[in-house]
Amino acid sequence: MNAATAHKPTTKGEDTRSAILAAAVEQASVGGFESLTIGTLAEKTGMSKSGLFAHFGSKLDLQMAALDEAARQFTEAVFLPAMKAPRGLKRLRALFEGWISWPQRASMPGGCPIDAAGREYQHQRGHPMHDAVLDRQRTLDRELAKTVLLAVEAGELAKGLDPRQVAFELLGIIFAFYRTELVLGSAEASERARASFDRLVEAYRA
Amino acid sequence: MNAATAHKPTTKGEDTRSAILAAAVEQASVGGFESLTIGTLAEKTGMSKSGLFAHFGSKLDLQMAALDEAARQFTEAVFLPAMKAPRGLKRLRALFEGWISWPQRASMPGGCPIDAAGREYQHQRGHPMHDAVLDRQRTLDRELAKTVLLAVEAGELAKGLDPRQVAFELLGIIFAFYRTELVLGSAEASERARASFDRLVEAYRA
Repeated sequence: MNAATAHKPTTKGEDTRSAILAAAVEQASVGGFESLTIGTLAEKTGMSKSGLFAHFGSKLDLQMAALDEAARQFTEAVFLPAMKAPRGLKRLRALFEGWISWPQRASMPGGCPIDAAGREYQHQRGHPMHDAVLDRQRTLDRELAKTVLLAVEAGELAKGLDPRQVAFELLGIIFAFYRTELVLGSAEASERARASFDRLVEAYRA
Repeated sequence: MNAATAHKPTTKGEDTRSAILAAAVEQASVGGFESLTIGTLAEKTGMSKSGLFAHFGSKLDLQMAALDEAARQFTEAVFLPAMKAPRGLKRLRALFEGWISWPQRASMPGGCPIDAAGREYQHQRGHPMHDAVLDRQRTLDRELAKTVLLAVEAGELAKGLDPRQVAFELLGIIFAFYRTELVLGSAEASERARASFDRLVEAYRA
């Protein structure tokens, strides 16, 4: 089995679907998920509208699939690599570093698409994207809190701390980074985010 | 001079312009500033497109004016009341409390519109809204850092701290609140935001 056949074989249809979704995530990063229409995606990918309809029957199908794809990319590029670090502060730091650097590493032209989806739909009760977005947010928060708890169990963070409070504060640092990255420049924003992370760890250290 | 005449007299044109801008800010809160077109605003306000064109010559004029209006509302509802609190931690806390509660107090149906503008345009170099948004962000960050510095000068926060680092961390708490408000519910999100604020103040106390 050589390198070429080691990958899961894909059909042409799957390849096309992947290419459409990659373009959709990139566009959602810039223009938000509301900008994802069969028409704009047809223009962006150079495919026909009917070709796109064959893959996604509606704007909503396309939006949902693009959110799933963004989450899949995030898991692959941020969570899974962090899981290779030993449980505890090393893993927590790997997760944090992966998270803040992801939009740039993934060449997301408009920043984190999952953040964009949250901004667009979290207040829109009744919209199918609302529930999908809140589910994603809950999963992220839970995984972050779980990583904090492992650092407690590893004896590196204080027993009795509230992992969800620490996760809330970590999330704040990540969002402050996203928000200040353009105002301060990436270098200063990263430096400030790391200083905040270090201070957080010191405050909750065992 | 009675209460009615104590207000600055406004012309009918100014009243109409204010009504359009109030509707525009509300819509930007939900759908972002890209959703602000002469057409959608005409629909929302029940005015004719030509009537709207008389006030705003283009989509961009309307977007810019709506961002100015959102900033004006924020200043009036958050900054000015906080300035009435004595310099120091009381003012810093008033600013923080006003900031996190503003979108709800102002009945912004989709959350903070200035945050929405940041999400939409901060990565779009070359777009006129990009520069306008970054200017607003710089002003906010500077005012926040200035309020921190006054607490240092009042002897309540530690001499030698970096006010811009504290402002960065405060901004993070505000954004963590905005991001978790729907997932956790307002009550728990506020509680976690206040706990973070208290911990921040303790860490930097004189």
